[in-house]
Amino acid sequence: MKYQPKLTLLSIFTLFTIISGHSQVSVNQDRLEQRIFDLAKFGLQENGETERVAFSDANIEANKWVISELTKMGLETHTDFAGNIVATRSGTKKNMKPIVFGSHIDRVPNGGNYDGCVGSMAALEVIQTLNENNIKTKHPFQVVIFSNEEGGVMGSRAIAGHLGKTALGVRNSTGYSMGEGIMRLGGDTTRIAEVARKEGDVTAFLELHIEQGGTLEKENIEIGVVEGIVGLKWWNVEFTGFANHAGTTPMDARQDALLAAAKYIVAVNEITNSFESAQVGTVGRIKAEPGAPNVIPGKVVASLEIRDLSSEVIEKVFNAIKAKTEDIAEASNVKVEIQPLDTTADPAIMDSQIQKIIAKNAESLGLTYKYMPSGAGHDAQDMALIAPTGMIFVPSKGGISHSPKEFTSAEDMANGANVLLSSLLSLDKMMD
Amino acid sequence: MKYQPKLTLLSIFTLFTIISGHSQVSVNQDRLEQRIFDLAKFGLQENGETERVAFSDANIEANKWVISELTKMGLETHTDFAGNIVATRSGTKKNMKPIVFGSHIDRVPNGGNYDGCVGSMAALEVIQTLNENNIKTKHPFQVVIFSNEEGGVMGSRAIAGHLGKTALGVRNSTGYSMGEGIMRLGGDTTRIAEVARKEGDVTAFLELHIEQGGTLEKENIEIGVVEGIVGLKWWNVEFTGFANHAGTTPMDARQDALLAAAKYIVAVNEITNSFESAQVGTVGRIKAEPGAPNVIPGKVVASLEIRDLSSEVIEKVFNAIKAKTEDIAEASNVKVEIQPLDTTADPAIMDSQIQKIIAKNAESLGLTYKYMPSGAGHDAQDMALIAPTGMIFVPSKGGISHSPKEFTSAEDMANGANVLLSSLLSLDKMMD
Repeated sequence: MKYQPKLTLLSIFTLFTIISGHSQVSVNQDRLEQRIFDLAKFGLQENGETERVAFSDANIEANKWVISELTKMGLETHTDFAGNIVATRSGTKKNMKPIVFGSHIDRVPNGGNYDGCVGSMAALEVIQTLNENNIKTKHPFQVVIFSNEEGGVMGSRAIAGHLGKTALGVRNSTGYSMGEGIMRLGGDTTRIAEVARKEGDVTAFLELHIEQGGTLEKENIEIGVVEGIVGLKWWNVEFTGFANHAGTTPMDARQDALLAAAKYIVAVNEITNSFESAQVGTVGRIKAEPGAPNVIPGKVVASLEIRDLSSEVIEKVFNAIKAKTEDIAEASNVKVEIQPLDTTADPAIMDSQIQKIIAKNAESLGLTYKYMPSGAGHDAQDMALIAPTGMIFVPSKGGISHSPKEFTSAEDMANGANVLLSSLLSLDKMMD
Repeated sequence: MKYQPKLTLLSIFTLFTIISGHSQVSVNQDRLEQRIFDLAKFGLQENGETERVAFSDANIEANKWVISELTKMGLETHTDFAGNIVATRSGTKKNMKPIVFGSHIDRVPNGGNYDGCVGSMAALEVIQTLNENNIKTKHPFQVVIFSNEEGGVMGSRAIAGHLGKTALGVRNSTGYSMGEGIMRLGGDTTRIAEVARKEGDVTAFLELHIEQGGTLEKENIEIGVVEGIVGLKWWNVEFTGFANHAGTTPMDARQDALLAAAKYIVAVNEITNSFESAQVGTVGRIKAEPGAPNVIPGKVVASLEIRDLSSEVIEKVFNAIKAKTEDIAEASNVKVEIQPLDTTADPAIMDSQIQKIIAKNAESLGLTYKYMPSGAGHDAQDMALIAPTGMIFVPSKGGISHSPKEFTSAEDMANGANVLLSSLLSLDKMMD
């Protein structure tokens, strides 16, 4: 079920009027970047790179630091039962539901300093800027630093009310299960259900994040207005031929499972490219058996992943790949079986009014922007299930992510934080 | 260096006259098949299949049985320093060098009852048939059951004088090294050099073997006259792209090493097929890294094997594949490096006069035959370095080999043994 946006319908003109009212407020770029550097010290290794997988000691220490920073800014701050950090800045009007924003500070193994961290440190910077400028908001402003995003958007799933019991048994590279990790972070697995929020509990949710792709940098654009987070599906594609002696089996008598799989891989690329729009299709995993240079492979298992903003497009691309793959198998005298895997995520569409607000604020700040999908999953995809949600992207150098080489410039981060700040203020004015 | 055939030049007419002189002698088909069954008992497992890898207890017991069978037939029989069984039936003329024939009884793991065994048991059957028919030969007839054929034609390399010291360290699935295995079989690693034979020490060598391919069965032909054993070369083909997030990296910004490798695999097949003749090209091994369905592969290493009777053709096919692969890499925005591997075998051409003798004898026995290459390696390839050598193939059901499903009918085995017997008698008459 998707939350139906409850924004008052506003004309573009009205939007513009609201936005232009607070265009003078802006974040402190140097301070924002310094916090990124300070955060990178939690988990710093001898090789100069940082490791901070969820539930690690570094994660716990970083959380303590974030909590102390937010507390110093005067916010009521606590760790919820799912291990999320929740900090609230009061609003001026009674009975208003909070406008929520934030991201995560846990990282993949061998990850970088920007994924999640930019949105999290920008959230702190927004609060500090509001404080410094004595800006009051009608709504409570609530920062959430979600727990264990990289290990399956754990914290946001808990808030959206669908973190199942079975997920708690999944262990990450620290050796701790999600359940054990929640306890380490200061949560309580017996009370997770209490952190779930209903539709209407959150006025709106915004997340700033690095793009993790190369589109913005390549096109020299400063802000991405996220249209939605693509859905994805995984399949296993298994080709069964006949393993035979590569010396004694003539070319025309072979049932070469790897040759069929190679044609399938080429077809996945061609068919994915033949559809208009931004869908992606990937074969990332392949195993050929028996796997010796002098034996014709008798069995090959290859993966298939398709992502798009539309489940219907995913289905269309898959059907075209399936039909072509069956033709390839028949022509290659091998069998093929295509099995869907459990890994599936529905597309999460960002609220269209919030997209407009983000775009207008970017424009008002003199920044270039473009509407774009998010190819990666984010906490915003679960928040979208319970609240009108928007995402702001800033460029990733070289499109590199989940790597120590990840980089976003201080200017790009500040641009994103300013769009976040002004969009939050727009929402505060527009929403009841 | 290749041995230059020393056969007296004979017209086809003369050949035919010689051959027709002993066409009445033939082997005992049932006894031949019974010996195949008896041999299969050495290493018989509870699941009904036989395991008899070189140096195993089963190999040693089977050797003892073969030695006792040959001794019972009145042959001077011993195990040489390289673990080969050598049994000699005296000739009538003094100072003649032996005509040698035989094969091997060791097997690959999870192998079949016919590979090597047919040629070995046929050699025993030939001796028994000669004895029963009181046929004397000018030359000594010498049966050799080569040691560890499957682990690198060990015994025949020793006889050809090029079993190097480093090979003795190679271990097979029994856990024994070749050196240790030779000791187990009753050889002596310090005296291996003494088993080497020079050009002229062997009058001729013949080996009967199952085809291990499906050509004879498919074309309904009873005898294969082997023209030569194909040479082979191996390469590693390494594609380096850039591993990246499969969700955030647009299709046109990818450096997908697996997509390039897939196009390479298709090209290997197309290019190999585009040359006339019987060359084969195979990609049997592939590894993609990092190997996750949601990551674009940044590195792929795939194998390349090309086999042909002509080293020149191997080179031509390789050059065409190399050029096309470099084009593919460039168009795919990935790097490619092609590295030759150590595994290389030169083609071994069978003696052309012996090929004619085999063909004529097959014809004289009323059997259909065809000239064909051997795609697999055999002891005959090393014997060809020191003596005029020929090989006779019989059909393999379904082309299956190195599998418990391997099968050759009693009739096909007897046909092969009769061609072996009559060809040996032709050689005895024709050669000095």
